[in-house]
Amino acid sequence: MGVSGSGKTTIGKLLAETLNIDFFDGDDFHSEENVKKMASGSPLNDSDRENWLDAINSKAKEIIKKNKSAVFACSALKEAYRIILEKDLSFKVLWIYLKGDFDFIHQRISERKGHFMPPNLLKSQFETLEEPIKGIFVNLESQPEEIISFIMSKLNTSEFGLVGLGVMGKSLARNLAKNGVKLSLYNRHVVGLEENIANKFIEQYSELEHALGFEDLEKFVNAIQHPRKIFLMIKAGHETDVFIDQIKLFLEKGDILIDGGNSHYKDTKRRMDSLLKDGIHFIGTGVSGGEKGALEGPSIMPSGDFEAYKKISNYLNNIAAKDKNGESCCTYIGPEGSGHFIKMVHNGIEYAEMQLIAETFAILRYGKGLEPTEISSLFKSWSNGELKSYLLEITAEILLKKEGDQNLIDLILDKAGNKGTGNWTTVAGTELGIPVTMITSALFARYLSSIKTDYIGINHHSVVSSIDFKASENEIKAAYQLARILNHQQGFSLIKTASDHFNWNLNLSEIARIWTNGCIIRSVLMEKLAEIFKNSSDVFENIDFIKEMTNNKSALKNVCKSSLEKELPIPSHLAAIDYLNVLNNNFPTANIIQAQRDFFGAHTYQRVDDSSGKFYHTVWE
Amino acid sequence: MGVSGSGKTTIGKLLAETLNIDFFDGDDFHSEENVKKMASGSPLNDSDRENWLDAINSKAKEIIKKNKSAVFACSALKEAYRIILEKDLSFKVLWIYLKGDFDFIHQRISERKGHFMPPNLLKSQFETLEEPIKGIFVNLESQPEEIISFIMSKLNTSEFGLVGLGVMGKSLARNLAKNGVKLSLYNRHVVGLEENIANKFIEQYSELEHALGFEDLEKFVNAIQHPRKIFLMIKAGHETDVFIDQIKLFLEKGDILIDGGNSHYKDTKRRMDSLLKDGIHFIGTGVSGGEKGALEGPSIMPSGDFEAYKKISNYLNNIAAKDKNGESCCTYIGPEGSGHFIKMVHNGIEYAEMQLIAETFAILRYGKGLEPTEISSLFKSWSNGELKSYLLEITAEILLKKEGDQNLIDLILDKAGNKGTGNWTTVAGTELGIPVTMITSALFARYLSSIKTDYIGINHHSVVSSIDFKASENEIKAAYQLARILNHQQGFSLIKTASDHFNWNLNLSEIARIWTNGCIIRSVLMEKLAEIFKNSSDVFENIDFIKEMTNNKSALKNVCKSSLEKELPIPSHLAAIDYLNVLNNNFPTANIIQAQRDFFGAHTYQRVDDSSGKFYHTVWE
Repeated sequence: MGVSGSGKTTIGKLLAETLNIDFFDGDDFHSEENVKKMASGSPLNDSDRENWLDAINSKAKEIIKKNKSAVFACSALKEAYRIILEKDLSFKVLWIYLKGDFDFIHQRISERKGHFMPPNLLKSQFETLEEPIKGIFVNLESQPEEIISFIMSKLNTSEFGLVGLGVMGKSLARNLAKNGVKLSLYNRHVVGLEENIANKFIEQYSELEHALGFEDLEKFVNAIQHPRKIFLMIKAGHETDVFIDQIKLFLEKGDILIDGGNSHYKDTKRRMDSLLKDGIHFIGTGVSGGEKGALEGPSIMPSGDFEAYKKISNYLNNIAAKDKNGESCCTYIGPEGSGHFIKMVHNGIEYAEMQLIAETFAILRYGKGLEPTEISSLFKSWSNGELKSYLLEITAEILLKKEGDQNLIDLILDKAGNKGTGNWTTVAGTELGIPVTMITSALFARYLSSIKTDYIGINHHSVVSSIDFKASENEIKAAYQLARILNHQQGFSLIKTASDHFNWNLNLSEIARIWTNGCIIRSVLMEKLAEIFKNSSDVFENIDFIKEMTNNKSALKNVCKSSLEKELPIPSHLAAIDYLNVLNNNFPTANIIQAQRDFFGAHTYQRVDDSSGKFYHTVWE
Repeated sequence: MGVSGSGKTTIGKLLAETLNIDFFDGDDFHSEENVKKMASGSPLNDSDRENWLDAINSKAKEIIKKNKSAVFACSALKEAYRIILEKDLSFKVLWIYLKGDFDFIHQRISERKGHFMPPNLLKSQFETLEEPIKGIFVNLESQPEEIISFIMSKLNTSEFGLVGLGVMGKSLARNLAKNGVKLSLYNRHVVGLEENIANKFIEQYSELEHALGFEDLEKFVNAIQHPRKIFLMIKAGHETDVFIDQIKLFLEKGDILIDGGNSHYKDTKRRMDSLLKDGIHFIGTGVSGGEKGALEGPSIMPSGDFEAYKKISNYLNNIAAKDKNGESCCTYIGPEGSGHFIKMVHNGIEYAEMQLIAETFAILRYGKGLEPTEISSLFKSWSNGELKSYLLEITAEILLKKEGDQNLIDLILDKAGNKGTGNWTTVAGTELGIPVTMITSALFARYLSSIKTDYIGINHHSVVSSIDFKASENEIKAAYQLARILNHQQGFSLIKTASDHFNWNLNLSEIARIWTNGCIIRSVLMEKLAEIFKNSSDVFENIDFIKEMTNNKSALKNVCKSSLEKELPIPSHLAAIDYLNVLNNNFPTANIIQAQRDFFGAHTYQRVDDSSGKFYHTVWE
């Protein structure tokens, strides 16, 4: 609103464009008589105006009926007129008042051509004008771009949306807000369980003072600037599909959905392809770091359409952890679901890292007879060197935790949970032909911990054999070190194989680099890998690692033998030593299997004396 | 054809019903004049008949245009008439001649009421009759059912169809034919590669003399009696879907497709549901036994619609192997894809059985220094007792095979192939939460054998350590025996879990029983399991097995330790000992993992002192 010549049309059009909604010029709703009257130099009286304002009000109702918003340019000089314009509208009207003085506007109108209102009517407009009581007051002497930016800052809209206020969603929202991002936050409404979650959360933290909370999906979407950028932090799987179907109804071409959940990489590709048909971009991104990492800086692994990624890369880079050189622990991973793929492998590696620490704990405690506090000290001392890792550090903390005079660890049930990604990594390994023996042994160890109570009756005992545990503490450390290298070697082999298989062209060094901070498997070893992968695509190509493996192999062997003697469960250590035994030695066994397959199924075999790879069949009987 | 009163209408209708095609009575094509003339007692002359025969011929053309067959009842007494009837028909006409003597027919007609032809015209018919040169001659004095059965036996149709003449398809076809089943055989036509396969195959074996060969799918389907029973022995996966889409066009309601390939159980359920919409039954069946088993009697594992199964059960039971009590090694498994599921697990168990033998071979050869022939003798002696199994027996044969003065086994490349079912079992285990560590270790051993040449550079040596291999031959045998039990325990646990999960209500004892003969994993152990599962659903519930495991555990431990010392690759043995160590002892490690998960992700944990299963969270920092 504003007097004639205040710039309503220019600013209104620009604003509508910015908000991606329709623009209407109030002048277009004048009757022919009004236009003639104004052209002849006579000011309109209130009766002239009533039909005109009614016509604009009707148009507004029509727009609202379609559940849309619009920008109207209209002088709306008196409060009475504004009451007519607002009459019975179910959507809120926000008045933007273009304010300026007579001389400036007079000067501007004098320079304007083809307008039907002669400048000498301006005086009557200023006389008629009643400034609105509330609304956005804009200095019309500013440049249009400045005016729009000023209006946008005052408008009740957000730059970025986030859906799902679980542990990770909340941390990411606070992280974004701390980085100055104005957020719209949505959480579903579940009667008695999840009520008004977003607003309660906003009230809790000062950094969220500019955030808007929603339980109505449509209002949530409409509160976000175009193109919308919406982070989904909801449960992976079926629920994500259901939610996408819901939100899709309110999205428009060019909008960007970012799935930060632990979705399966094949689902991510499917969703990407499906949403693209409606012009909606879908970015699948791994996010690692747990609650604290998400708040203070997670490792972020986005993939999908690169053009869409560029539009959100600033947000992701700002909230991500920083590596030792200050670079963001976020990088564009590749096309399709590659981001979720590597997050899955990250979690798989994490499974085996955790299992190796748990086994090392068991070896030290039940093999060497150390107490949890002593093991904690040992782990802390290991953490000062090459073995430094987040998981080892938190385990050292865990082992110090007491409840009364008991170690808290002894009160925790020996039954591990799992959430799908370790499982998927094993499946991906089997599908792509990569023996991820370390990850799988860790996954199955968790499964076994869940089902072993079923078998508790069968000869269960916890007697520690009286034979001394021969392997030394140093050997236990060396064995752990070697097994970790093999775990990482297998995980990155799987990534490399997937990259080749799906033509993703992944950069192993960058992947290792963004895993050096923020994420759960950050470690000194990962920093080393980020360097090594600059020049090679396999741990086994690196001479230092080969040396380390050679040096530490006998330690691993001794730890395994001593642990077997004491009947300690060490599946991941055993997987490690067997992997080395296959790779380092030449004791064929697969020839027996090929002969058997050829015997009973005529599956044929290849020969050591024919490098052409030709297949042979023998009539065995 | 035949004189009036020979029973053409009765037999024709019955035949049409049996063949599920339309029936037409020639009498209905007479003009009114002819009918009157016959009723008045005058015989028809050739001119009277010409229009009549033309009318029938036209009807036949109409039927053929729709690509259908039909049964026509028509006296067709003279060769000249038959020429008119057959004129320009693109389908072959098969003449069925109902033959009998004057007195019998005269007697029959005299007893008949409401027929327009007076018995005294019969004589002129006999005078006119020229017997056909070729066709099926039927004694019309037999009972209608006998006549139909006689005609069906002479008709050029089959009881059973079989698609896909690969190694397994050919063996099953011969097996069916030897059991007196008249077959239609189809193999696709691939120029230059697969041409006229079915007919070439039929010519090769005398038992196939009554079989029909096809390369045209429509003709193949039409040559099979209703409801069609068609065995598919084609490549599993996408190709099976493509083929089903093709053959579906020619199938009718009530037809039964039997998929005997190694299809994934989820695909089988999907296909079942989809085909049922068109009223077509789909039976998914596992078939094990390799080339020889399929020919001489495989183990067969059908699942799906039980009513449809009953219609094919005779065929399957006849060709299946027989157990030691003479019962067929075929049983109805359960609904959906349960048959393919257990076939998958069968193959998974097979993977681990083969791997255990291969490892035992390596232990005996590289650990104990035995030669292949010595190992063969040892395996043969083991095969006389509890350890008797098909796979051990064929391995004993394999180890005797020479090429010149070399052991053939030494000429076979140390690189094992795999075809998906071992892979799927690992995936099913991970999806259903069952740690199938034995199967997975065997699968990954095959994968490793394929990729280890990539790493051949890294410090590869085949030096056998000079330290003596401490474990004895008896311990090696006992270790193998124990590991096999654990392999079977895991495999059947997976089946049990799937049965509960999918509500399949599977009978473990019956499954073990049909695996006691015909299939690759048949063994004395399997016979024992068939007994045990009559009273329990887990190997670990059996006191004898518990005793055996307890007795043999130290042997397994020693074999593993000695093998580690010699750096022999023994993944499945290690999986076995670790499985026992988890189940038999109480050295917690999962508590560490739960604490870590709660530390970084607030995943919570349960406590040893709260049996309610409540979840706790600790603020660790």
